[in-house]
Amino acid sequence: MRLVILGGVAAGTKAASRARRLDLEMEITVYQEEPEPSISECGLPYFLSGVVEERENLIARTPEQFADRDIEVLVRHKVERIDTTGKKLSVLDLRTGETFEDTYDRLIIATGARAVLPPIPGADLEGVFKLRFLTDSDEIGRYLKERSPRKATIVGGGYIGLEVAENLCRLGMEVSLIEGEDRVALAYGPEVSENVEAELEANGISVYTGEQVDEFTGEGRVGGVKFGGQELETDLAIFGVGIRPNVELAEKAGVEIGATGAILVDCHMKTSVPDVWAAGDCVETPNLVSGRPTWVPLGDTANQMGRVAGTNAATDDETLEFPGVLGTGIFKVFDIGVGKTGLSEKEAEEAGFEVVSAGLWANDRAAYYPGAQKVFLKLIADRATGRLLGAEAAGSGADKLTDICATALWGRLSYPDLVNIDLAYSPPYGPVLSPIIQAATILSGKFDRAKEGIRASE
Amino acid sequence: MRLVILGGVAAGTKAASRARRLDLEMEITVYQEEPEPSISECGLPYFLSGVVEERENLIARTPEQFADRDIEVLVRHKVERIDTTGKKLSVLDLRTGETFEDTYDRLIIATGARAVLPPIPGADLEGVFKLRFLTDSDEIGRYLKERSPRKATIVGGGYIGLEVAENLCRLGMEVSLIEGEDRVALAYGPEVSENVEAELEANGISVYTGEQVDEFTGEGRVGGVKFGGQELETDLAIFGVGIRPNVELAEKAGVEIGATGAILVDCHMKTSVPDVWAAGDCVETPNLVSGRPTWVPLGDTANQMGRVAGTNAATDDETLEFPGVLGTGIFKVFDIGVGKTGLSEKEAEEAGFEVVSAGLWANDRAAYYPGAQKVFLKLIADRATGRLLGAEAAGSGADKLTDICATALWGRLSYPDLVNIDLAYSPPYGPVLSPIIQAATILSGKFDRAKEGIRASE
Repeated sequence: MRLVILGGVAAGTKAASRARRLDLEMEITVYQEEPEPSISECGLPYFLSGVVEERENLIARTPEQFADRDIEVLVRHKVERIDTTGKKLSVLDLRTGETFEDTYDRLIIATGARAVLPPIPGADLEGVFKLRFLTDSDEIGRYLKERSPRKATIVGGGYIGLEVAENLCRLGMEVSLIEGEDRVALAYGPEVSENVEAELEANGISVYTGEQVDEFTGEGRVGGVKFGGQELETDLAIFGVGIRPNVELAEKAGVEIGATGAILVDCHMKTSVPDVWAAGDCVETPNLVSGRPTWVPLGDTANQMGRVAGTNAATDDETLEFPGVLGTGIFKVFDIGVGKTGLSEKEAEEAGFEVVSAGLWANDRAAYYPGAQKVFLKLIADRATGRLLGAEAAGSGADKLTDICATALWGRLSYPDLVNIDLAYSPPYGPVLSPIIQAATILSGKFDRAKEGIRASE
Repeated sequence: MRLVILGGVAAGTKAASRARRLDLEMEITVYQEEPEPSISECGLPYFLSGVVEERENLIARTPEQFADRDIEVLVRHKVERIDTTGKKLSVLDLRTGETFEDTYDRLIIATGARAVLPPIPGADLEGVFKLRFLTDSDEIGRYLKERSPRKATIVGGGYIGLEVAENLCRLGMEVSLIEGEDRVALAYGPEVSENVEAELEANGISVYTGEQVDEFTGEGRVGGVKFGGQELETDLAIFGVGIRPNVELAEKAGVEIGATGAILVDCHMKTSVPDVWAAGDCVETPNLVSGRPTWVPLGDTANQMGRVAGTNAATDDETLEFPGVLGTGIFKVFDIGVGKTGLSEKEAEEAGFEVVSAGLWANDRAAYYPGAQKVFLKLIADRATGRLLGAEAAGSGADKLTDICATALWGRLSYPDLVNIDLAYSPPYGPVLSPIIQAATILSGKFDRAKEGIRASE
């Protein structure tokens, strides 16, 4: 029995390890285009600045370590064609340029996602980068060392752009961030965006929203960026935008693609083609709040999906299910965490809910306990049923609030469930009533007023 | 309509505020024995050491501030008798020694809990204290100032004793902690106790477990403590043990007392007597995991109960419910948080469950992200159904893990629900798979092995 896995980052290597655990006899081969497997891609922004010092710390396992577990990992190999009828693969060895044929009994597609740069004139100049793979950060690192850029431009105010902006700022660069929409962190509500922009500006980053980059200028190497009728000097530009699922290979092989443009899988991570599973950033999965397919390319989800795909492929059974996601995520911008789970108000409205929400600023510990910092929390609920639909948090302890709300969504709780929820209180860890309880109580007042019953809530 | 509330700490003042919000006409009077209402009692250990600097920061609202909201708060008043038939109260003004009669239409009993010192010879010496009220910390503060004690003994290794031990240590004292049972933090499993003892010892505190204090020695003022055949010098001793619900007044008035020795209330916080509600540290409530009545004297729960009692008393209706608690709690000992929700293994066994558990040490952030610290997590589940019964966490980020598990218990989730739960990941905030997912996956392996199905889990 031969299992072949295409892609060796989070989902692919997790699937391989899991399959090996379950089946000691199976042949397992992982093909990977990039030179290293098992990269912690989420750590790349922190490697740029040296917050993460050692390159090898971002490599969870080397091919040699996989070999010790009898998993063959072939890096710099690109699978160019899948013949799902004959169960054959055409593989290009990128080191030699030679092509060879391989076969599989079972196949897991974990080809991930790639950065797709917007077609901006000058984007091919030296000093204009994307940040997707460890090789990208190697290139940026070399450029930093050789050219000592002083001024940097980040294109895109999503979480990658924001993380990169912070880390370049930590290197002492003068950083500008340009976002096409009218605010950064667009997946969140406007209060969070405002908060993030304030944090960026407080740390000396110039934020330009509602601006499209027209052109990068320079002779061979980038020297400026033009947008909105002005030109900024810049010695370095990094894209934090434009990621798409890598599905062309699967699509050509007849694997069905879903509504989001990523591979369609069932809850067992099985594709439309027999003996072919898929997992990670190349697949779509249901959003458990909206019920709609969603594409959420995140490392933790990829890991969980890989475990399910690896298990089911190894057992050729429907042993494990992957139910879907909530769209939970978090990122750090300087001193604040910015987290989200479920649907934003906008997303909830688009999904057909009539939305009621409550936002508040709270302390991250008892007000009298030293070092108390502020955190913003918004709970979003369905007016008709009271069901919690989503939450956003920004500030100190946002990770905790986000995870509590994610767990509440996972349990399909409603706002009244949260008014009396028994969370852990002690002065160093929160106010006597968690911001979640406070927000649920405000929501409860809104519902009550709507029913013309009780006038308001404390 | 006259609402009288007995007790003015968390539950009493919350009930009063809530009632005033709902009914602007009602007369509201709060009687309170201690000289200040609305004290943040959980902050007292931190006030001892000066971590919390200002006494007034521990007073959420003064009687004058309550008066502004048309709530009469009479401090230094002790209600000595309740006549539930005539709806009359006999009140002693502790300042004048005079007794007067008052009446009520509706009554809320929020008389809290008190410290009951074990009958140890010498416990009445100067320098031997309990820490329950702000007045206690005032007395200790005076003693610290006048006597400059160098050696302190804490009796009891529960959370109050541990918090006090840390705070005295911060004052530069040589601190010993004596616990009668064979380990501290007895509400937790042995791994957590071991961890806490290590943290105490790493900070220079001498821990004596399995030792009963035989006697405090000294001439007028404490000079030593005898236990287990030895005598330690000590200039100060503080009890962190022996809290009981204040129910004598209610009991004499014919209010039914529950199995735990605290006042029995229904889910509307109503007692067995018409027009009498009760809330806070003097009542018992169901543990939602075991289904059994439990007595959990904690400030956040008191606050939530007060809201429910105040609402229902103000509306004379069953407007709000208080469903019960999970027994969630957390405390800090130096650099680690120690949290718990639901049942410990021992408690779960006592409640009749066949228990399976998974404990692990994890990082509080990505291993490669600077500053990563360890945290211990244990998940406890019902072998028969997989239902999560409890969780314990100790270390960095224990508050977050405890709250996630509390929310999972609140939603009655089972361990398989937690294997794929969509929590927030980013390198500064956790490992790629949350310790909760890791522990749930280990549990899943244990269940699988038990079923002789899949061999093990990753």
